[in-house]
Amino acid sequence: MPEWTPAQQIVFEDWKRRVSEVYRLYGYTFLETPAMERSEVLAAKTGAQTQKQIYRIAKDGASTSLRFDLTVPLARYVSAHQSDLPFPFRRQAIGKVWRGERAQKGRFREFYQADADIIGREKLSLTADAEILAMVADAIEALCLGDFQLQISNRKVVIGFLDSLKVMDKAQVIQLLDDADKMSAAKLRQELELLRLDVFEIRKILKFASIRGDWDRASQELLALDYGNEEFNQGLDELGQLDRALRAFGLDPRMYQYNFGIIRGLDYYTGMIYETKLVEHPEIGSISSGGRYDNLVGAFSHTKYPGVGCSIGLTRLFSQAVAADLVDIRQTTVSQVCVLPFVEELEKVATVVRALRQSGIATELYLEGGGLTKSLRAAAKLGVPYVLIIGGDELAAHRLTLKNMSTGEQESLNLAQVIDTLQQF
Amino acid sequence: MPEWTPAQQIVFEDWKRRVSEVYRLYGYTFLETPAMERSEVLAAKTGAQTQKQIYRIAKDGASTSLRFDLTVPLARYVSAHQSDLPFPFRRQAIGKVWRGERAQKGRFREFYQADADIIGREKLSLTADAEILAMVADAIEALCLGDFQLQISNRKVVIGFLDSLKVMDKAQVIQLLDDADKMSAAKLRQELELLRLDVFEIRKILKFASIRGDWDRASQELLALDYGNEEFNQGLDELGQLDRALRAFGLDPRMYQYNFGIIRGLDYYTGMIYETKLVEHPEIGSISSGGRYDNLVGAFSHTKYPGVGCSIGLTRLFSQAVAADLVDIRQTTVSQVCVLPFVEELEKVATVVRALRQSGIATELYLEGGGLTKSLRAAAKLGVPYVLIIGGDELAAHRLTLKNMSTGEQESLNLAQVIDTLQQF
Repeated sequence: MPEWTPAQQIVFEDWKRRVSEVYRLYGYTFLETPAMERSEVLAAKTGAQTQKQIYRIAKDGASTSLRFDLTVPLARYVSAHQSDLPFPFRRQAIGKVWRGERAQKGRFREFYQADADIIGREKLSLTADAEILAMVADAIEALCLGDFQLQISNRKVVIGFLDSLKVMDKAQVIQLLDDADKMSAAKLRQELELLRLDVFEIRKILKFASIRGDWDRASQELLALDYGNEEFNQGLDELGQLDRALRAFGLDPRMYQYNFGIIRGLDYYTGMIYETKLVEHPEIGSISSGGRYDNLVGAFSHTKYPGVGCSIGLTRLFSQAVAADLVDIRQTTVSQVCVLPFVEELEKVATVVRALRQSGIATELYLEGGGLTKSLRAAAKLGVPYVLIIGGDELAAHRLTLKNMSTGEQESLNLAQVIDTLQQF
Repeated sequence: MPEWTPAQQIVFEDWKRRVSEVYRLYGYTFLETPAMERSEVLAAKTGAQTQKQIYRIAKDGASTSLRFDLTVPLARYVSAHQSDLPFPFRRQAIGKVWRGERAQKGRFREFYQADADIIGREKLSLTADAEILAMVADAIEALCLGDFQLQISNRKVVIGFLDSLKVMDKAQVIQLLDDADKMSAAKLRQELELLRLDVFEIRKILKFASIRGDWDRASQELLALDYGNEEFNQGLDELGQLDRALRAFGLDPRMYQYNFGIIRGLDYYTGMIYETKLVEHPEIGSISSGGRYDNLVGAFSHTKYPGVGCSIGLTRLFSQAVAADLVDIRQTTVSQVCVLPFVEELEKVATVVRALRQSGIATELYLEGGGLTKSLRAAAKLGVPYVLIIGGDELAAHRLTLKNMSTGEQESLNLAQVIDTLQQF
C-alpha cells in the first residue's frame, strides 16, 4: 500500500484537485459511496479474477467487503435512488479501492481511482461515449505528463468477430488477448493452439488484434477481414458514430487511435472500451481505462440504465510518474512562511500571524523557543520558502525581517510589505 | 454507513475544503496513510472498548485491520520516518475511519474525521496545545453552524485528583465519568457506590466532575478541593499556561471553558483534552475532540515524540446538522448551466461549450435529443440554475438564448454576454 512523503503528498493532492476540476467543468457532480459494500453486490458483476482479489471483512459472516472499483457501487446507488436522480446522471468520484493483488512494482493493494460516469435511463446516446473520452483526455492533459494516446475498441466488434470464427471458448480467447502484452507472440500463438484453434483461425485472431490506426484505416482493415455478422456490424457502426463525435468535440487526432488488441478484463463492458498510454513511457502501461456498460445498473434494477465511464488509476500513475521523474516535487510543506518569534509577548506575535493568515498566506508559527541559529535550522529542515523573524526592538518600530530561504537574502519590512511579498511568491 | 444525495454531497465536499483550508493556513501539511494497518499497530494503544470495534480483514490471518482513527496511523508513520521529517511536524488528514459500533442515530460505522496534529521531537511546548484549540475553533467557525464552545480538561488533573482520593480502580471511575452524560445523577451515584467508594468520596468526585467555567473560576474551585498532589499540580500548571496562550491567540472567551466532566475514552491522552459542543444544539453531542498524547509515538519508537491534535467528526456532524436544518442545501448539481442544442452540427455546439468551460463555468451538455419541452424538463430535474438554448437560426446570427431557471426569464445574448452573466452568478 502506497504512502507518500509530505512533499509527494502535496503534488498528489494537487492532482486530485486538477482531475476533479476538469470533471466539474463538464458538469459531473460529486457522489461518494462507502468503502464497504455487501459482498453479493460486488460479486454480481465481477470477473473471476477480480473476485479472488476482493477483501472481505471478518465480521457478520464476511457479508461485507471492500469495493474493488467505483463503478459497481455507483450502479448499486443509481438503482437504489433511481426515482430521485436526474438522467442522464453525471457523477465524479475520486476515492480509494482495494484489490488483494500480489504486490509488485507499480501495483498496489489500496489505490485511488478518479472516475467519471454518465448513466442514462432507458437510453444513452453514443455522443456520451465521446464526451467521456474528450473529458478524460482533458483531465490527463491537466496532469502535464507529456503526450498520451487513448486506445479505443468496442466489445461488440470483438465478440462479433470471435462469434463469426466459431471459437468455442470466447472468454478464454478474450482473457488471452487481454494478457497479450505480457507474453511473446510465440507464446500467445501456443496458448491459442491449446484452445484447439486451427492455424487459419489463429492467424485471423492475431491479425484482428494487431489492427490500429485512425478510423479510416482501422475501419478499412476491419471490413477487409470480411467476417461480419450483426453484432460486429453494430460495433462498427457505433465506432463510426463515436469517431464523428470525437472530431466534432475537437479532440486532437494524435490523442487517440483505434486498437483492437485492447480488451479490458472486467465483464460488464458492452460497447466502447478504451485504455490510455503515455507516448514516451509505454512501460507505465494503461493510465486510464473504461467504457460503455449497458447492463450493469440493470443487474440491480428492472429498468435499463446504460452507462459509460472513465477511470484514471491515480495512485499507480503517480507512483510510476514519480519513478520516471515526470513529477516536479518542489514544496516539502504547505507553509509559505515560518514565523520565528523573539519577543516576550505572544499577543504581538499572534497579531502578525493572524494578519498573514487572513491574507490567505499559509503561516507556520515556530513555538519551541531557542536561539536564532536553532530556529533557522528548524525552518530550513521544514523547507519553507520564507522565514519571518519578529524581534522586540524591530517590532516596536513596526518592522519585521523577511528572509528568503533559497537566496538567503533578508529585508526589513513593515507588515503590509511582508504580506505583499508573500502573496506575490 | 452514510450515503448523501448529490445535493448534500456538494455541501459535504465544501465542508472538507473549508476545514482543510483553515488547517493549511496554520501550516499543517497533507499526509495520508492507508486505510488498512497491521492489526497489532492498532492494538498497541487502544482502549478495550475501541478494540472490540475494529474491523479485521479476512485475509492473511486477519493481520490487517481498518483504522479506527487517524492518530494511531500518524504515530506509526512518524516513528517509521522520524529521520526524514521536520519537527515540530504539523500534519492534516481528512479521511475515513471505521468502527463496528452498533448502528444508532447519528453514529456511523464508516465516517470521516478531519484531523490536525503537531508532533515534536523530545519536547513540544504547551503553546502548541493552544494553537490546536485556536485553529480548531477557526475550522468549526468556517462551517457556520452557530455558537460553539470548547470544553477543556487535563488528564493529569483528573488522574492526580483520583490518586489523592485513593480510588482502587481508576479506569472504571474514568469510564463512568466519560459515560456520565448518558445516565442520570442517581444512576451515576449508584454505579460509583458499586466501586466501593464511600459517600464522602462520591460527593468529591461528583463535585470535581461538575466544575466548569473560565480559568479564574475553574482554577479556584480546583484549588478549593484541596486534594493536590504532584500530578494534579502539574496539570493545574499546564492549564494555567494554556489559558494564557489562548488569551494571547485572541480566542473569544465565549468559545471555551474548562469542564472537568470531560474525560475522553481513548487511553493515549496524557495532558490537555477537549470536546466541543454547539451551544444551541447540545443534543448533537461533541463535534470535535482531541488532546495531548506524549507517549503515543513513543509506543513505536525509542525517542520521545510528544503530540497534540484535534479531530472534527465530520460525517456525524454533517448528518446531525442536516437533521437539525443547520445546513443550507441549495445546489443539486455542480453544473452552472445546461446546454440544450437544437442544431445539426455538433462542432458548433462544442465550440460554445468549450468557451464556457475555458471561462471556468461548469457546463453540462444535454446530448439526448428530443424537443424543447422534453429537454427543458430534463434540465429542470437536474436543478441547474441556467439553461443555454442553441438554435440554428439564432446561432447563425451569433445569438444564444440564456434562460434563468428560477425566474423563468430568458434573454437573447452573444457568447461573451452569456459568459459574463454566468460568471457573475
